Formats: sequence, C-alpha cells, structure tokens
Amino acid sequence: MMIIGEKINGTRKQVAAAIRERDAASIEALAREQVEAGADYLDVNAGTEPDREADDLIWLVQTVQQCVEVPLCLDSPNSATLKRAISAVDQLPMINSISGEQERLEQVLPLVAEQQCPVIVLALDQAGIPQTVDDRLNIIAHLVNATRQAGISDDKLYIDPLIMAVSTSDDAGLIACETIRSIRRQYPLAHITGGLSNMSFGSPVRKYINQAFLVLALEAGMDSAIMDPCSPDMLPLLLAAEVVLGRDRFCNKYNRAFRAGKLG
Amino acid sequence: MMIIGEKINGTRKQVAAAIRERDAASIEALAREQVEAGADYLDVNAGTEPDREADDLIWLVQTVQQCVEVPLCLDSPNSATLKRAISAVDQLPMINSISGEQERLEQVLPLVAEQQCPVIVLALDQAGIPQTVDDRLNIIAHLVNATRQAGISDDKLYIDPLIMAVSTSDDAGLIACETIRSIRRQYPLAHITGGLSNMSFGSPVRKYINQAFLVLALEAGMDSAIMDPCSPDMLPLLLAAEVVLGRDRFCNKYNRAFRAGKLG
Repeated sequence: MMIIGEKINGTRKQVAAAIRERDAASIEALAREQVEAGADYLDVNAGTEPDREADDLIWLVQTVQQCVEVPLCLDSPNSATLKRAISAVDQLPMINSISGEQERLEQVLPLVAEQQCPVIVLALDQAGIPQTVDDRLNIIAHLVNATRQAGISDDKLYIDPLIMAVSTSDDAGLIACETIRSIRRQYPLAHITGGLSNMSFGSPVRKYINQAFLVLALEAGMDSAIMDPCSPDMLPLLLAAEVVLGRDRFCNKYNRAFRAGKLG
Repeated sequence: MMIIGEKINGTRKQVAAAIRERDAASIEALAREQVEAGADYLDVNAGTEPDREADDLIWLVQTVQQCVEVPLCLDSPNSATLKRAISAVDQLPMINSISGEQERLEQVLPLVAEQQCPVIVLALDQAGIPQTVDDRLNIIAHLVNATRQAGISDDKLYIDPLIMAVSTSDDAGLIACETIRSIRRQYPLAHITGGLSNMSFGSPVRKYINQAFLVLALEAGMDSAIMDPCSPDMLPLLLAAEVVLGRDRFCNKYNRAFRAGKLG
C-alpha cells in the first residue's frame, strides 16, 4: 500500500504556527518521522489565505525536500498555488486534487497533463458530497473520462471515494468499501486512496475504527491511503492484513518488518 | 459475534497443572477473566488421558459453573467423556465437536440430537486436514446432511472451516475467508466459528495477524470465534469492525463499550 503522510497540513494548529513563524525545525521533524514510519509521499498543505498560500506552500516544499527524499503531494484548492508550487519541487509531485467541481477541473487538469504526474481524483462535485455509491461512481466516471481525454493514463490516478464518518452515518463504512470495490473492478489500472481517519471522525477511541477500516478497505481494493503513518499499530496491521489476504509471499514483508523492529 | 473463550484447555501447561492438583482457584480465575472480557461460552477441555479425562472434565465443569454463569462448550475427542460431562452441566452446553471422522460422528451425533444443543462442526475427516476450499465444503455438506437427518436444525451448527497458519501456507487466509463466505451463502442459518489464532501460529508478533484475520473473517460472514477474549485490542477491534460494516446501529454497541471503559 502506498502511504501518503498527512501530517504537514496547515489546518492543524501546530503546523499553522510553524508556517507563520517559518519554524523549519518543526516541519522537518514532521517530515522525518513520517518517512521513518513508512510514508511513500508527504502531503504538504499550507492551509493559509489565498494571498499568501503559494509562498507558504513553496516554503513548505523547500523545507521538506531539504531533509527527506520522498516525493511530495501538493495539496491546495487553488490552481495558481499548485502551479507555482510545482515549479519548486525537485521530484515529480502528486497533485491533490482534481474533482468534479468544473472550475477546479478545468484549471488543474492541464497542469497534471503537462507534468504527467500522479493526481488524486476526488469523488466530489459542485453539488457537494455525494450520498450514495452510484453518485460517487458517476462523478468518478465523468472525471476519468476527462483525464483520459487530457491524455492522462489511468495508472496516474489515485481515486478517492470520499470517506465519511460512521458517527454521522451508519452506512459510511459500507459505502466506502462498496465504492472501492466498484472502482477496483471498473478501473483496474487506477489506484485508490482516501483519508482513512475520516471514517472515525467524531467517534471515541478512533484508532480501532481506523484499524478496522484499513483492513476492510485493503480487502476491497484500496492500494493507497492518506494517513498518519506514525499512528501506532496501523502499519503492522496493514502488513498483517496483506499476509492474511495472501498478498505477501512467504510472509516476506511481514517477517522483514519484524526483524527491523517495526512490529513493536 | 459469539465468543467462545479458549483458555481453559488442559493442553496448556498451566491448566494441566491446575487440573492435576485440583487447583480450583486457578481455573476460576481463568473463567472469570474470560467472562469479564466478554466470553459468551467457555470452552472446557481436560486434555488428559482417556482413563481420567471424564473425571477431570467433570471437575472442570463443576469448578467453572460454580463461579460464572455462561454456558460451557464441552471439548473432547471422546464421546463417552462428552456423555458423562453433559450430565454434569447446569445449562445446555455446546458440544466441541463433530467432524467427518465416521466413528466420532456416529457416536457424538446422537448426543447432540438428544440434547438439541449447539455443536461445533469441524471441516475435517479421516483423510486429515482438507487442503482446498472445495474439499472443506464437501466435508461440510456431508456433515450438514447428517445433522439434518438426525433432526438437528442448522441454527444449532457452529461450522468451523479449519483455520490454518499463514506461516506454513501463503493462501491460508484466503482459503479461510473463501470457505467462510461459501458457508455463509450455502447455510444462511448456520453459525460459523473457528480457532482465530491458528492463523498466526508460527508467525512473529501474532496479535496483528489475529487482528487482521478477525476483521476479514467477520466481513466474510464468521459470527463466532474460539479465542482468548482477554487478548488486548481484539474485542475493541471487533466492535469497530461491526461499526464499519454497518452492523452497529448508531454505533450503539461501540459507544456503550466506550462508556463502560472497555475500549481502553
């Protein structure tokens, strides 16, 4: 599973303060701990007002890529910000994100096509958050049609089924898993990602909900997650689930993680 | 999920010693801790030589039912032992087990029919452990045919798909899950149980393998498990998986467990 570390996000108080104060050490610490824990990409989101967002994001990009080697996932609702940030990255970034919101799609799609970079595809449009599996699949079909027409191959796509909270809807887990299963069937070359911990928003002892969903989403066909890789037990459980699903030949990855002291 | 606590088993050194020394306090402690953790049934297995097994099992039965109120799962390969132990129980027990081994089936089936008690149905016969899903399903079909002919309704059956270890076979998890899925489809009224921790036998840091399999087996249709209910994180994760699978209306059970301090 491809892990996108979510911690460098300016909507978090600690990160907002670090950005404001240009406190590079704090950002570097977040970058290093996520990579050490197993992040394949690091999401960077400035979360600041449009007039300073691009400068802030570029500072984040420069700070992070000075201390770790993993590629970045540039996270902004603003295409102009993304465009400027792309010019600051050392390695091909992932773009977070396109969605069915027409304006955003029209502005961000050309950037992705030009860069031929991976992109997160949100099952969301101007009508807001889709309520059903079919609504999600319809939006995704529209978006995949657009990416294909723009010359972006399906293997660049990280489709996000829009994971909702079980605390507000009993069928949030089933909808997520069923959407994942359908995406896996319909778009075999595309990747599937999403904000894992959205599932547990508003629930007590969130870790158990996150863990259960991680295993179920993996079985359903998710092959990437936007998550906190430092969260205890999550990565060992992920490795164990791959074993039980018959996806880890001779338990090689699990045993290697054990020998490296990564199973605790 | 209906939990059968597995800890009072004479093949474990500590339990064997307690049985030998008629150390009731140790057995009572194992009984209480499992019931407090959430066991619905307690498995009792003397694990001693045939000439003393019945006496030992009856002592276990009497010791356990003096201190806890849950029903027992009488566990013996020996029909004469089961017959004597049945006469010692206060509540309708579960019988562990019948299998496709002809002699055992012929001897134990009449006991189950007479008692009209729940029974564990092992997907195993004189040829040993079946290697494939189909081999398991064939044995189960033969056994369900026999139980039906004996007048035992399917809802009394706790079918055990025979869970094997991923450390010896890469497809042990897939075989278990696929067998569970097929049993669920073919015998909608039957229950499905099994020794959860068999999956992790021989693996390092077994808990993660057990946890991943618990979630996957639950999704596949398992509704009972023979397990150590005291094992940390297992029951909270089980409750969380029921939430994510949309089987816990308004997260009532999960939230209640949280308020009772059972989510740690």
